[in-house]
Amino acid sequence: MTQALRHDAMRARNLALVLGAVGARESVTRAALAEMTGLTKTTVSKLVGDLIEGGLVVETGAVRDGERGRPGVEIRISGQHVAALGLEVNVDYLAVCVVDLARTVRLRRTQAVDNRAAPPVDVIARLGDLASAVVDEAVENGLRVVGGVLAVPGPVDMTSGVVHNAPNLGWRDVPLASLLRFPFPVRVENEANLAALGELWFGSGLPDFLHVSGEIGIGAGLVVRGRLFRGAHGFAGELGHVVVSPDGPPCRCGGRGCLEQYAGQDALLTAARAAASIRPAAVPPAAVSPAAVSPVAAHGNPPAGMPRRRDADTSGETGTSGKTDEPSSSPEMLLPAQQGVAWVLSRLKEGDADVRAACERAAWALGVALSSAVNLVDPDAIVLGGIYAPLFPWIGHMVADTLKDRLGQMRGAVPPVVVSRLGAEAAALGAAGQVIEQVMADPAALLHT
Amino acid sequence: MTQALRHDAMRARNLALVLGAVGARESVTRAALAEMTGLTKTTVSKLVGDLIEGGLVVETGAVRDGERGRPGVEIRISGQHVAALGLEVNVDYLAVCVVDLARTVRLRRTQAVDNRAAPPVDVIARLGDLASAVVDEAVENGLRVVGGVLAVPGPVDMTSGVVHNAPNLGWRDVPLASLLRFPFPVRVENEANLAALGELWFGSGLPDFLHVSGEIGIGAGLVVRGRLFRGAHGFAGELGHVVVSPDGPPCRCGGRGCLEQYAGQDALLTAARAAASIRPAAVPPAAVSPAAVSPVAAHGNPPAGMPRRRDADTSGETGTSGKTDEPSSSPEMLLPAQQGVAWVLSRLKEGDADVRAACERAAWALGVALSSAVNLVDPDAIVLGGIYAPLFPWIGHMVADTLKDRLGQMRGAVPPVVVSRLGAEAAALGAAGQVIEQVMADPAALLHT
Repeated sequence: MTQALRHDAMRARNLALVLGAVGARESVTRAALAEMTGLTKTTVSKLVGDLIEGGLVVETGAVRDGERGRPGVEIRISGQHVAALGLEVNVDYLAVCVVDLARTVRLRRTQAVDNRAAPPVDVIARLGDLASAVVDEAVENGLRVVGGVLAVPGPVDMTSGVVHNAPNLGWRDVPLASLLRFPFPVRVENEANLAALGELWFGSGLPDFLHVSGEIGIGAGLVVRGRLFRGAHGFAGELGHVVVSPDGPPCRCGGRGCLEQYAGQDALLTAARAAASIRPAAVPPAAVSPAAVSPVAAHGNPPAGMPRRRDADTSGETGTSGKTDEPSSSPEMLLPAQQGVAWVLSRLKEGDADVRAACERAAWALGVALSSAVNLVDPDAIVLGGIYAPLFPWIGHMVADTLKDRLGQMRGAVPPVVVSRLGAEAAALGAAGQVIEQVMADPAALLHT
Repeated sequence: MTQALRHDAMRARNLALVLGAVGARESVTRAALAEMTGLTKTTVSKLVGDLIEGGLVVETGAVRDGERGRPGVEIRISGQHVAALGLEVNVDYLAVCVVDLARTVRLRRTQAVDNRAAPPVDVIARLGDLASAVVDEAVENGLRVVGGVLAVPGPVDMTSGVVHNAPNLGWRDVPLASLLRFPFPVRVENEANLAALGELWFGSGLPDFLHVSGEIGIGAGLVVRGRLFRGAHGFAGELGHVVVSPDGPPCRCGGRGCLEQYAGQDALLTAARAAASIRPAAVPPAAVSPAAVSPVAAHGNPPAGMPRRRDADTSGETGTSGKTDEPSSSPEMLLPAQQGVAWVLSRLKEGDADVRAACERAAWALGVALSSAVNLVDPDAIVLGGIYAPLFPWIGHMVADTLKDRLGQMRGAVPPVVVSRLGAEAAALGAAGQVIEQVMADPAALLHT
């Protein structure tokens, strides 16, 4: 290593050290920064100057008495310049948000849309439109979006940006990174990982937890001492494919009896509808006429009563059979989460005991899979997010009881089961937060550009 | 922080930096160390002097031409002074070993003994005798044992050294750390974690893997980029209690259908015996007369044919029933692993199709639980250790096939299933290795004593 290279590396390290020290407090003086970092005051002043010039930190105007009588100007992270874009493609919605370097959420947009019907290139184009609108708005507000992260519901090769398989989107080996067109770098990552990071940075504030993203698929993100656990290839946390019953119903992943087949959104809605013995009149208008939000239904057969199942169901209409609680996975009959889950919630609030029992069966399966997860990864708490958040008052207790039954004797303490406060935006927030983390970890990369 | 404290902290950091740099190569000159660490040659020389004085590094006597014409003396980690003690209590054996700072295994002892019958204090006393013998021998060889780690088959509170529950030993809330009497610090840790570290440091050399310790219980240790993943409380890796079938046989942990009930050593031996329809004549002499190695049998009823089951088995003797393949957990009828598994191996080698089928059923269950584990923690490889190592030629294929069936569609690559080369000594080696790691990470702590 040459002296010049060494100097650059040291400067980069020290910039990160100082920026991190600023970020660790509400505001701080240069003298305090020197004390915190062990750097000389001259070095700190030079570095702070560079960070101010780059728009990463700002003088607050407040003056604090120095320890040795000399007052110092307070500095804090600037929320006025650098910002990050968070994006999410999920099965039945798109989400984008802009977060500034001070971790304030500045803009957010969510669009309900059934992405199972569209080729990836079209989904990404629609997402691009949504993102461009918020980026333009951010720029009008004086922000500079320096990078983005895109959340997708499936394992992602972090190096290539290829989504190997997102079975619930019907995506296989999609080179997603190459489809993205932004004037700044955008990486792709697994939705469940990012939702866990969203929970860490914008949610409960717990440092150790397993966050469960209940959507069509069920992902989980494990945070240990404030850091995401990714596994060897970034594919960790596929809770939806943890085995509940080894000879159970076949799953799109190729396995059998996976948790998703018992407690995924489709399985849960199918079971709840069957339990409620739906008559067409009992289905709210939005649920029988999904054309406004579902491109599949719009281009398919017009729904009459309940839409037909695509798979070989000789009984014709699920709406009239009402008895089966076999998990199903036909996309056309299902509605965006906001509507399907809203219907389940309305039945639960009305005290429908059969729908409640169906939800509790799903919650029991979730508890079984989580007991395996707790045995394997030992989280300090379990945070239920996605569709499990609104359902929590009806399912939380069953999940916790199942865990207690299966873990209580072996462990000193069974992890508490708590509800996420972020809901469907968790992943997009975590995505933007990850860009912010990257800037904080290596501000020199940004200052050099 | 005062200047003196800062100096001590910096010296400690630099000592670790230099020792780590020495350990990273076969041998190295002071000039090369200065280049590797960024420290001045004067500082390096001073630190190397301290490390030599403390017996941590040694001059090899070899001289290498310097880059700028001045020859330098080669230095390497010294294997002649500092050493570590590894200890293991498992259900049916005790193991101890001494490893020197150069990671050479200097001494090892294993004792077959059924620890399920004895109170913890007696087990620890016996382990202490075994350990004292090897420590004395190490001292005679000029070694100084600076610390130890004890492996136990159950979750351990790393702070207090309390074993909350080792169900297969019958231990509950045992304050193990307080029972240990050694003239150096000895920590307690989970056996499966340490076996994984043993595999990392003394085995395959893979940096990313899930190591499975098949014993009476089934633990797993996850190594990611050369580091052990412990979870929030150090209880991660309880693979034996991952659910194979949620309504399966009850497990000692309080759950049902745990992997241990299908593929743990007791379950596997019971199933293999049942499958073989054992006649007394078919049981090898060692297996029907375990008195020489098993204190339980020695103090209990003298075995005749097959030992009686302790639980309420109205059929009297399992040797004559031969039909049940329900998992069992009566200690008396079971033999130390070396013998029970040896018998299974002999049947497999003789081509006993029924015993082979029983082992394959256990391997299928192991594959099911591992498919959940791969989905959750995403290891790069799976290493089968403990009793699965000798059984590997008969079970490895079924484990790999089950993983492929359940994971193949979802993942780009299914982790390969390989066999551990360490066997029953893995945990004790990992325990000693952990002490070595600690010395390497903080040599100043040792030099100050």
